[in-house]
Amino acid sequence: MRVKMAPQGPEVSRLVYGVWRMQEDAQGTDPQRVLGKVQACLDLGITTFDHADIYGGYRCEELFGAALRTNPGLRQRLELVTKCGIMLTHPARPQNWIKHYDYSRQHLIGSVEQSLRNLATDYIDVLLLHRPSPLLDPAEAAEALRLLVEQGKVRHVGVSNFTPAQFDMLASYLPTPIVTNQVELHPLRPEPFLDGTLDHCLRQRILPMGWSPLAGGRLMTGHGEAEGRTREVLHGLGHKYGVAPETIVYAWLLRHPSRILPVLGTNQPERIASAARALSLSLDTQDWFAVWRAATGTEVP
Amino acid sequence: MRVKMAPQGPEVSRLVYGVWRMQEDAQGTDPQRVLGKVQACLDLGITTFDHADIYGGYRCEELFGAALRTNPGLRQRLELVTKCGIMLTHPARPQNWIKHYDYSRQHLIGSVEQSLRNLATDYIDVLLLHRPSPLLDPAEAAEALRLLVEQGKVRHVGVSNFTPAQFDMLASYLPTPIVTNQVELHPLRPEPFLDGTLDHCLRQRILPMGWSPLAGGRLMTGHGEAEGRTREVLHGLGHKYGVAPETIVYAWLLRHPSRILPVLGTNQPERIASAARALSLSLDTQDWFAVWRAATGTEVP
Amino acid sequence: MRVKMAPQGPEVSRLVYGVWRMQEDAQGTDPQRVLGKVQACLDLGITTFDHADIYGGYRCEELFGAALRTNPGLRQRLELVTKCGIMLTHPARPQNWIKHYDYSRQHLIGSVEQSLRNLATDYIDVLLLHRPSPLLDPAEAAEALRLLVEQGKVRHVGVSNFTPAQFDMLASYLPTPIVTNQVELHPLRPEPFLDGTLDHCLRQRILPMGWSPLAGGRLMTGHGEAEGRTREVLHGLGHKYGVAPETIVYAWLLRHPSRILPVLGTNQPERIASAARALSLSLDTQDWFAVWRAATGTEVP
Repeated sequence: MRVKMAPQGPEVSRLVYGVWRMQEDAQGTDPQRVLGKVQACLDLGITTFDHADIYGGYRCEELFGAALRTNPGLRQRLELVTKCGIMLTHPARPQNWIKHYDYSRQHLIGSVEQSLRNLATDYIDVLLLHRPSPLLDPAEAAEALRLLVEQGKVRHVGVSNFTPAQFDMLASYLPTPIVTNQVELHPLRPEPFLDGTLDHCLRQRILPMGWSPLAGGRLMTGHGEAEGRTREVLHGLGHKYGVAPETIVYAWLLRHPSRILPVLGTNQPERIASAARALSLSLDTQDWFAVWRAATGTEVP
Repeated sequence: MRVKMAPQGPEVSRLVYGVWRMQEDAQGTDPQRVLGKVQACLDLGITTFDHADIYGGYRCEELFGAALRTNPGLRQRLELVTKCGIMLTHPARPQNWIKHYDYSRQHLIGSVEQSLRNLATDYIDVLLLHRPSPLLDPAEAAEALRLLVEQGKVRHVGVSNFTPAQFDMLASYLPTPIVTNQVELHPLRPEPFLDGTLDHCLRQRILPMGWSPLAGGRLMTGHGEAEGRTREVLHGLGHKYGVAPETIVYAWLLRHPSRILPVLGTNQPERIASAARALSLSLDTQDWFAVWRAATGTEVP
Repeated sequence: MRVKMAPQGPEVSRLVYGVWRMQEDAQGTDPQRVLGKVQACLDLGITTFDHADIYGGYRCEELFGAALRTNPGLRQRLELVTKCGIMLTHPARPQNWIKHYDYSRQHLIGSVEQSLRNLATDYIDVLLLHRPSPLLDPAEAAEALRLLVEQGKVRHVGVSNFTPAQFDMLASYLPTPIVTNQVELHPLRPEPFLDGTLDHCLRQRILPMGWSPLAGGRLMTGHGEAEGRTREVLHGLGHKYGVAPETIVYAWLLRHPSRILPVLGTNQPERIASAARALSLSLDTQDWFAVWRAATGTEVP
C-alpha cells in the first residue's frame, strides 16, 4: 500500500521501517542480516526506510549502506529518509563538548554529504531536520536546503518533532514545501491528537510519520497504570480481531484520518509481519475510543 | 437586538435560549409550557434557540418540535441551532457501549435527518459539530456537510468546543465558512479570553456562542473562593446599576468585543427577563476588570 | 549598527536604551544628567530610546522631554518608542481605582497626545500597545491608530507582551503592519524561544524587542539555582572572550536568528558600554547552548 506523503511529496509505503535499533540486533549487523530484514520489508510492501545520522552512535547509516553496496539494484526500489542537526557528545564527534543542534549551512551540507557516502547512494528521498533548535536560523538553513535540492542530493525536505509554529516559520523561508513532520505518536501520548500537531498536518495535506508506535515497548511491557489498562484493552481487541495486541496498536494509528505513517523499530522479521497485518484491519470506531479511554484514563468529554 | 453571526452567517438574536435543561422544568414539558417559554423569549427579542441531539437524553428536540407543531407559523420566526456527533451510552442508543464521537458521513446525515423530524422542521439554521474528535475525518465530514447544505437541510455550519487549530483544520476542508464556535464562557473561565479562542473568533469575524454563562450556577451558589469573591463584586455592581447580580454577568459577557452570544439555560421566564435586561446595560471598563480580578484572583499584569 | 525593525518599519539601533529606571538614577534626573546618558548612547551607536507613558509613575517621558528641549537638534538623531494602554492606580491618575487596560479610541488618542507633549516632540517613531487586554476592541483601537498614523503623530505601530494569536488578531484589523513585539527575553525565560513567540516574529519578518535582558538583575545577583548555574557559565565565558559576564548575556541575545533588540535599563554609562561591546562579539554555538543548559537545567532533547 503506497501513499503520497504530500501533494508535492514522494510516494512512500504506508508502514516505514526504522533502523535506529539496528545495532542492537542479536543476530548481528553484517550485510546479509541487514539485507534479510530489508527483503522481509519489501516482501510486505514496506519500501521506506527511516535513518538519522546519529543512529547507532553515527553507525547505522553506514551498516545499511554496506548492505546496499552488495546489491546495487536495490536502491531504486527503496525510499530513504534520513535526518540531521543533532550534535551528540560522542567519541565519534570529539569536537562536541555539549549536546546541541547545528543547522548552519556548513553543517547541513556536510551532514548530507556524509549521509550519502554512508548510505552508498547519491540522493536522499526525504531529509528531516531532526529537532527544532532555539537557535535555528531559517534563512541560512533554507539556503542550504535549497542548494541540496537543486543539486539533487535531497529530493524532499521534512521536519521532526516540530510544533506547528516552528513548522510554519521554517516553511515561510523554504522555496519547496515541507513534506512531513515526524513526531512521537502512540496511544500513551494523546497530546499530538489534541494540541494541533496532527490538525496541522491535516491542514497542510501532509502525512505525519509516527515514531515509537509502541511507546518504545512500554505499551507491551510497561508497569504503569495506563500501560496496564491499555494492554488489557489491546489484548481483548487482539482476541476479537484475531491478531496480536501490537497489530491492534498499528491499526489504531493507521485508522487516524491524518494517515499516520508508523515507523517500526523491531529487528524481528515476524514482528514486522505482525505490524503489516494491521494494513488489512479496519478498527471499529468504538474500539478506537476504547483504546483512547484506557490510555488517557477517562472517557471523552 | 439582532446581529449577523458571521459575514456569510445567519441573523440571530444577541441572546440565545438553550433548551438543554428543558426536561428539568418543574412545570413540565407539554407543548403549552414550551410555547409559553418560547413566547417569553420572543417578547424579549430572543429568537434563536440552541439544541443538541443528545439534550435531555435525546428527548429535548422532540419536545420542542411537539410545541412547534401546535403553532406551525412559529418556525419562521425562529432560528434553530442544533448539534451532532456525541455518542452517549444511553438506553436510547443501545448500540453505544462507550462514549465516543461519530462524524462519519452516514452518522452526520442520519443525525440531521433525525433532528429535522424531531424539531418538526425542514431545515436547521445552524448545525454545530458538538465536540472536536481525535478521530474526525475532515474530508468525510466536509463532504457530508456539503451535501446537507446543498439539500437545504442545513443552512450554516458551525462548531462547538473547538480549538483554533481544530477550527482552521476543518475550515480548510469545507466549501462554506464556519459561522460560530460555541464555547464555555463566563468569568470563572478566563482561559478563552487569553488563549486565542476569542482572538480567533475576532480574526475570523464570527461571533462566539457562550455556553454556561453563569458557570452552571456556580457563580450564584458555588462555595469556592473565586465564586465567593466574584459574587461579592457582582452584588456590588448589581446594586450600583440597579439590576440583579446575574444581569451583571450577562452584561459582562455582552461587553466583550467579540460580541459573545450567551446561551441562557433557565426554565424560569423571570430569569430570561433578567438576562435580557443586560442588553440595555453598558458596563464601565473598570467594573469589567473588577469582575475579572475577583474571578481570577489577581489584578492584570 | 542599524537594522530595519520590519520590512515597512523604521531603522533602529541594534541596542535600545530603556528609560524605565531613569528616576532611580542616583545622580539625578536633571536635563544635563539625562543628556549625558543620551550622548553616551549616541557615542556607542545606540539611537533608539524606549519609553512608556507609565514609567516612573507617569514621569519619565517628561524628564526625557525636558532634556530634549535644551537641545532641539537632538530629536532628529533619535528614534522614540513609547507605549500606552496600562491604567495604573497611582496618585497621578486618581480616576483609576483598579489596575486595568484602556484601548478605547479616546484613551489611545489622549495618551499619544500627552506623550508628544511630555517628550517635546511632534511624532512617536513606534507606539506600542503595552499589554494585551482581554477587553481590547480591535476595530476601535485600529481606527484610533489609523488616525494617529494619518496625522503623523505616530509613524509605526507595535505591540508588547502579545501572544501570536493576539498579534495576528489585531493585525487583521490594522491598515498598517505591526512592526515589533516587545517581550521579556533572557536566558532564564526560555519559553518565548520555544512556544512560538519568536518563531512568529521570524515568520512576520519583524524584529522582537527584548525587555529585561538581565532578568531584572537576577542573572547577576539572584540566589536561585538556575541563576547560580547560569552565572557560573557566564563568568567562564566572560573569561574566555575577555568581556564582562553581562556582555555575554547581550551577545547571547544578539546571536539569536530573530535579531532580538535588547532594551538596556541601566543608568550607568560604563554598563551601557559593556552592553555595546556585545555588538562585536560572536558567541560560539556550543557556548550558546551552554548558557541555555545552565539556565534551563537540562540539556536539549
